[in-house]
This record gives sequence, structure tokens and C-alpha cells, in this order.
Amino acid sequence: MLHKIINLTVRDVRFPTSLEQHGSDAMHTDPDYSAAYVVLDTDSGLKGFGLTFTLGRGTEIVVCAVNALAGLVVGKSLQEIVSDFRMFYRLLTSDGQMRWLGPEKGVIHLATAAVLNAVWDLWARAEDKPLWKLLVDMDPRQIVSCIDFRYISDALTEDEALDILVKAQEGRQQREDQMLKEGYPAYTTSCAWLGYSDQQLKQLCTDALKSGWTKFKVKVGADLEDDIRRCRLIRQMIGPNNTLMIDANQRWDVAEAISWVSKLAEVKPLWIEEPTSPDDILGHATISKALAPLGIGVATGEQCHNRVMFKQLLQASALQFVQIDSCRLGSVNENLAVLLMAHKFGVPVCPHAGGVGLCELVQHLILFDYICVSANLSNRMCEYVDHLHEHFTSPVVIQDAHYMPPKDPGYSCEMLESSVKRHQYPEGDVWKLHQKK
Amino acid sequence: MLHKIINLTVRDVRFPTSLEQHGSDAMHTDPDYSAAYVVLDTDSGLKGFGLTFTLGRGTEIVVCAVNALAGLVVGKSLQEIVSDFRMFYRLLTSDGQMRWLGPEKGVIHLATAAVLNAVWDLWARAEDKPLWKLLVDMDPRQIVSCIDFRYISDALTEDEALDILVKAQEGRQQREDQMLKEGYPAYTTSCAWLGYSDQQLKQLCTDALKSGWTKFKVKVGADLEDDIRRCRLIRQMIGPNNTLMIDANQRWDVAEAISWVSKLAEVKPLWIEEPTSPDDILGHATISKALAPLGIGVATGEQCHNRVMFKQLLQASALQFVQIDSCRLGSVNENLAVLLMAHKFGVPVCPHAGGVGLCELVQHLILFDYICVSANLSNRMCEYVDHLHEHFTSPVVIQDAHYMPPKDPGYSCEMLESSVKRHQYPEGDVWKLHQKK
Repeated sequence: MLHKIINLTVRDVRFPTSLEQHGSDAMHTDPDYSAAYVVLDTDSGLKGFGLTFTLGRGTEIVVCAVNALAGLVVGKSLQEIVSDFRMFYRLLTSDGQMRWLGPEKGVIHLATAAVLNAVWDLWARAEDKPLWKLLVDMDPRQIVSCIDFRYISDALTEDEALDILVKAQEGRQQREDQMLKEGYPAYTTSCAWLGYSDQQLKQLCTDALKSGWTKFKVKVGADLEDDIRRCRLIRQMIGPNNTLMIDANQRWDVAEAISWVSKLAEVKPLWIEEPTSPDDILGHATISKALAPLGIGVATGEQCHNRVMFKQLLQASALQFVQIDSCRLGSVNENLAVLLMAHKFGVPVCPHAGGVGLCELVQHLILFDYICVSANLSNRMCEYVDHLHEHFTSPVVIQDAHYMPPKDPGYSCEMLESSVKRHQYPEGDVWKLHQKK
Repeated sequence: MLHKIINLTVRDVRFPTSLEQHGSDAMHTDPDYSAAYVVLDTDSGLKGFGLTFTLGRGTEIVVCAVNALAGLVVGKSLQEIVSDFRMFYRLLTSDGQMRWLGPEKGVIHLATAAVLNAVWDLWARAEDKPLWKLLVDMDPRQIVSCIDFRYISDALTEDEALDILVKAQEGRQQREDQMLKEGYPAYTTSCAWLGYSDQQLKQLCTDALKSGWTKFKVKVGADLEDDIRRCRLIRQMIGPNNTLMIDANQRWDVAEAISWVSKLAEVKPLWIEEPTSPDDILGHATISKALAPLGIGVATGEQCHNRVMFKQLLQASALQFVQIDSCRLGSVNENLAVLLMAHKFGVPVCPHAGGVGLCELVQHLILFDYICVSANLSNRMCEYVDHLHEHFTSPVVIQDAHYMPPKDPGYSCEMLESSVKRHQYPEGDVWKLHQKK
């Protein structure tokens, strides 16, 4: 079956999360978790679903960009695409006119992610496997053939990538069985958004501890005294043996990051996430070096826009935790490159998730990372946020603070049609209601 | 007069340059030079004109992004904006929902540039001065107040910036007089696009030499043997004492760049431009180091997406020529930051121009750089390409291979309304005609 793609539709779907300050941080004070949601139709009747995550306003720009890419996808068969996936990736990212708008960054790359996520979903469905299993069962040569090594060959060659994958074949079945039984370790960000009251923090921490959570992330960066107070509160709630991470969402300049975080060292955070501009590789390196004596690592990646930036963060020892994102990079293809580079440089991958759909998507990638690349769980965990899963046909399953491997075929990003309709912007019922208020 | 902005319109204007291979290079083989063209209307009747440059397909995405930003502009007065321009810059670039789409990169930043270029044009018109003169006449404190120092304070503080401007006040009048008399030195890229035949190259070189041009840029990177042949041809045409630069438009990985350019060393290029990914700061540093013994510098910037990236290119000694762009960075505001950082690091600025409107815009910035910042012409020149100037109400004036300072009020990016109408995509006559063919 060739599965010729005969149509691509994209919709602007927004959830009014800002009303309750879910997701609020030092730089994004009022996010409405949203998505440019893509559906591919094929001549066989099989569909592919994909999305990229956004924060509300401007989602229409990404929708516009997806439509601009549609012509490169519609008319091709799945067979044709995956038989030379590297070339198809390059076709989308290197169009002689559109690459000026990036290249491989910002809106056009978010749109690329949405489209390619749908293609990967379609592929996994065609193979009747969840995406992680499709990847795990692939021959290392086929994995490597999906990656565009342009601009990263000075850090990772195709042969090196292949070598990593071949070496990790040992013990693969064992690790797959382990994941199916235990799941992949997760941490929670649901307890401590910046807009929450102390009362809310305490209640959420108590509930999370009861549910088995041992690793907690706190938003910081708006006010130092308030950060100290809130971090002490959380540390007190979770005790000395659980793990605490802090996240500044790019609030500081380099010197300010170092001095601010130093003052939070007493609560013993494992990492400081996004201390400064996501573009500032050298700045992250300076911060990493300054905080190392305090035992605090630097984590970043959710706004790291492509593999070239991740390459340099690794080359410069600018981060101690790689936070891949399933919707900002060019889908599975580009994330495979980052997983392999992180392994070569010996830096653990701890994916960014949350928003809407990010948990559903990225769990597949980190399962593949453990089973086929890193073979290691030390200092590794995947972010989890307890929002909006009810809108998906195959929502994540968390058991005892672990992601349980998805079983349904695909990439887990199909949304309930009723949810899409209700939340379509601006014509869905949810938004009509808000306009009336 | 407050000049309250009461309306913003944006149009998709495209010129079918790909038909004659104007602008063709190793990565952009068929550009249709285009613009998202912005007009601001005020209650006083005064208008502001701005644009950002694109390559054809996808311009509609930038148009969509400009419309998304319009709400942050319309309703404000020019007075209100320029009285705290730094805050207005940050308002546009740090919207809590839209910054996710960048931040400060790609489509959303190109849109920011178009909008802010129109605001600067409006300001210059309100003061009845060409933009360069508005800047030259400004108090250093006011210049500095337009710059957002977020994420660059580790390389340049506000005080250092002020200090640079104050020190350069000496001799300012003299340099202004010199510019008005002699103009700013330019180089030409019009002779050697990749798609041109040898016959075309020879003819264009001959014509250019006759018109007084002494500095020439050649596109390379598609085929090494062809590059050697074409570069030898040009070097032969222009003789040993004129200047030759080469431009690969991001075609290579790091190692390939070094080996390829080494083989072109015999034609003695002053610089290799865009040898690899615009995001690869460390890669550019490696290439710079390797090529220094050959006397070849590295130039980049036309796709460097913000001041944070320029900061690092300077910190890492990754480039020997800073190529600012008037439409990719956040307008004059962000370019001021880059000019001042380049001065602090002692690296000459040689602006990117060409496309449509880029020459018209960037000449103002480089005039300001010479008069008020660098006070130096050594190893400095501004790109010039002889295309599409006829569509502007105040086209650039080149005399003896120098940019003559514009005299008309504004930022020189008002297009002839008849040109806009003819080239509007897809409804303009030019495009209706193409569709018929």
C-alpha cells in the first residue's frame, strides 16, 4: 500500500488556559495552550495526525505556514517519503524561496514540525505500531537515513551515528520489556506555576507526593525574595531526598543568572532551566561553569530551535541536561540527530513536555532513546504536566510517576474531533463564549 | 503633533526575478525578490512606510505575522512610542503569547522589522529628515534609549554604549560633510550571480569597471571546478589590485568550507561569506581560525537572526566582517546594538544589501555608523546590487561606486503605488500575466 497523501488540513485550536494561570512563568504570563493541528488524508483511507504547540496569539501564523508547506506534501505517497526521508526533510526545510524565512527556525520550523509529526504518525499507523515501537524495530541504517547531517557533521558523522545505534542493540529487548513493565521515569511541573498561590502549591505538592511523584520543578525568575520563599516551601514539602529543579524561562542576562541562582543554591536544585536567551550558547557555557561548583547543572532546549544549536550547546559544554522538544525541532528526524549527539557527548536527555500534546508526543522519543541509544536512566526523566490530556484519543498513561509506553498505533497526537471543534479559534463554542463575556 | 497611528496595512509584493536568475546562489536558486510592505496611517495625515525582504513563496506568512502585531501598534502615537522606544521594542518582541514563535527570530522577527522600519520612517518624516540624519542629530542618550540591552549586557552595557557614542562625537561634523561630498564606499554583487553565463559575467565586469567599481563579490559553492574557473575569470577581469569577495550562501559543513575555500585562495578573496549555517557560531570560529593564515576573513550576518547571535559571533572571534541587515534584525533599534558591539570588538561592519529595498534602507545605518560610531572607512564597504530601485520614490543614488546620502525625509522605503499594485501577489497584473502563461 503506497498511502498517497491526497489532502492536508490544518486548524487553529486554542485552550483558554490563561484564565486559571496554568502554565504561567516569568516570561509567559498568560499562555493559552494551543496547537496548529494537521490532518493528512490518504487514498487508502488511513489518516496521519500531527501538531505543533503554541501559546495562543499567533497560532494563525503557524497555520498559514503549514498551508505554505502543504504543496510539498500533498501528492506524495508515504512510501515515497519514507524511502528517502532525509531528502524529504531537506525538501521541506530547504525550499529555495521559503528557507529565507528561517532557515530551520521560528514559525516555518514549527510548521515543518507539525507536518512531519503527521507524516510520522501516518507511518506508524501504516505499520500498525506506536511510534516508539516503529523506531525500536527499525534497522539502524534506516534510522540514520532519516537524519539530515547537514551542519552537524563536525560533531557527529553518519558512521558515528550508525556505530552508536549498532552498539546499543545489545540488551535492547530487555530494556523494551523493562519499559513495558515499569515505564519511563517522569517529573512534574504541575505543582508550582508562577501564578499559583502558596495554598495551591502546598495542596498540589501534598497530592503529588501521595501519587508517588519524587521529582518536582518550580518556576522562578520574577522576584528573588518570592523565589526563595517558594523554593523553601517546596523543598520543605518534598523533603531532602526528593529532587527539585528550577526554571527561569529565559528571564535573566548572564551575570544576573549566576548571582540569582547562587542565592537559590540552599534549596539544592538539580538544574536551573533556561537561565537566559535560548540563543546564547556562550552565555549558557559561562553560567554552567559558574554554577558547577554549587552542584547545579544547566538545562535548556524547549526553545532551542534546531540541531545546529544543540550541537553547539554540546560542543561548548553549555548544558548538563538536553531538553528536546517534539514540536520545535523538525519532528522525529531532527530529534534523532539530537539524541545521538547527546549520547556522543555524554549528556543526559530530559525532554520538555506539557503544553498541549507535548507529553503525548515526546514520550515516544524518550522511550526510543532509552531502548536504542542511551541504555541509561541515570539523571534522566521526562517532564509531565497534568493538563489537557482528555482531548486526545490516546492520552498518556502515567503510573507511579512513570510514562507507560503507548500501545495504540501512531504518534498519539490525534485529538478528539469534538474537542477540536469546540476549541477552534475563533469560531469554536469555547471562544464564542469568551467573546460574549 | 502626536501623530497617532490609526491604521496599519500590509501587502504581499513580489517581483518575478527568478525568470532571469537574478539573485541566484548556491542555496537560493530561484528567488523572486519580495517584500511584506507596511504602511502606517496617522491622524495627522503623515504616513510611515516600512518593509521586510523575502524571496517569494511564504511572503504571505510574514504578512500574516505583521497583521498579528498590528494590534500592538495601532492606537499608539509616534510620540508615545519614541519617548520610550526600548519598551516599545520589547512590547513587540516579548508578547507573552507570541514570543513562543521566535523569540526574536524567523517570521515573527521579520514582521517586527517591517513594522518598526515603518515606525522609524514615520519618525524621520515627522522630523523632516532622512533617517541617517535623524540618528546623527540625536543625543547619545536618546540613541541608547532605543536599544534593548537584554541578553547582551555581558558584551556591551548601556554605559559602554554611551561612552562609545560620546567619544565619537569628535569630528562628527567633518565626517558628515565628507559623506555628503564623497558618499559611502560600495561594492557590487551584480556581476556574478551563480546563474549567469560567462559571457554575461565578462560583460557585466567590463561595464562595472567602466563605472568605477573596484570591489566585486562572486557567488560560489555549487561546484568547485566551476568556482575556480569563474573566480579566475573575474580576478583576471578586475586585475590584482581590485578587491574580490566570495559568497557561499551557507552551502557547506565546517570541514568542507575550509577545504573548498582553501582551494580558492589563489584568487585572493578578502572574505568568504556565509560558509556554513548562519546559526553555527562555533563553526564560523573554526573556519575563521583555519583561513586566517591564508589571509581570508569570514563574513556573515544576512541571516544572523538577532543581536544575541551577533554578540556571540563577536565574542568567539567567529567573523572578521559584520554584515548587518536592515530587515532581519529588529529594525534600527537592534542594528544600533550590533553597530556598537562591533565597534567595541573592533570588527568592521559591511552591510548586506540587494534584494528589494535593502540598499535603500541599510545605507542610512552605515552612514550613521561612520559618522557616529566607527569613524573609520578601513576595510568597510556597503553591498550594492543594481535591481528594482526604480520601484521606490527615493531610490538610492550611486556615484562613482559610492552611496550618496539620501536627502528626502524618511527611511527611503516608500514604494511607488503603481509598482505595488502591479506586483501585489497574487492579484497584481504581473502575476496574473504569469499565471496565464
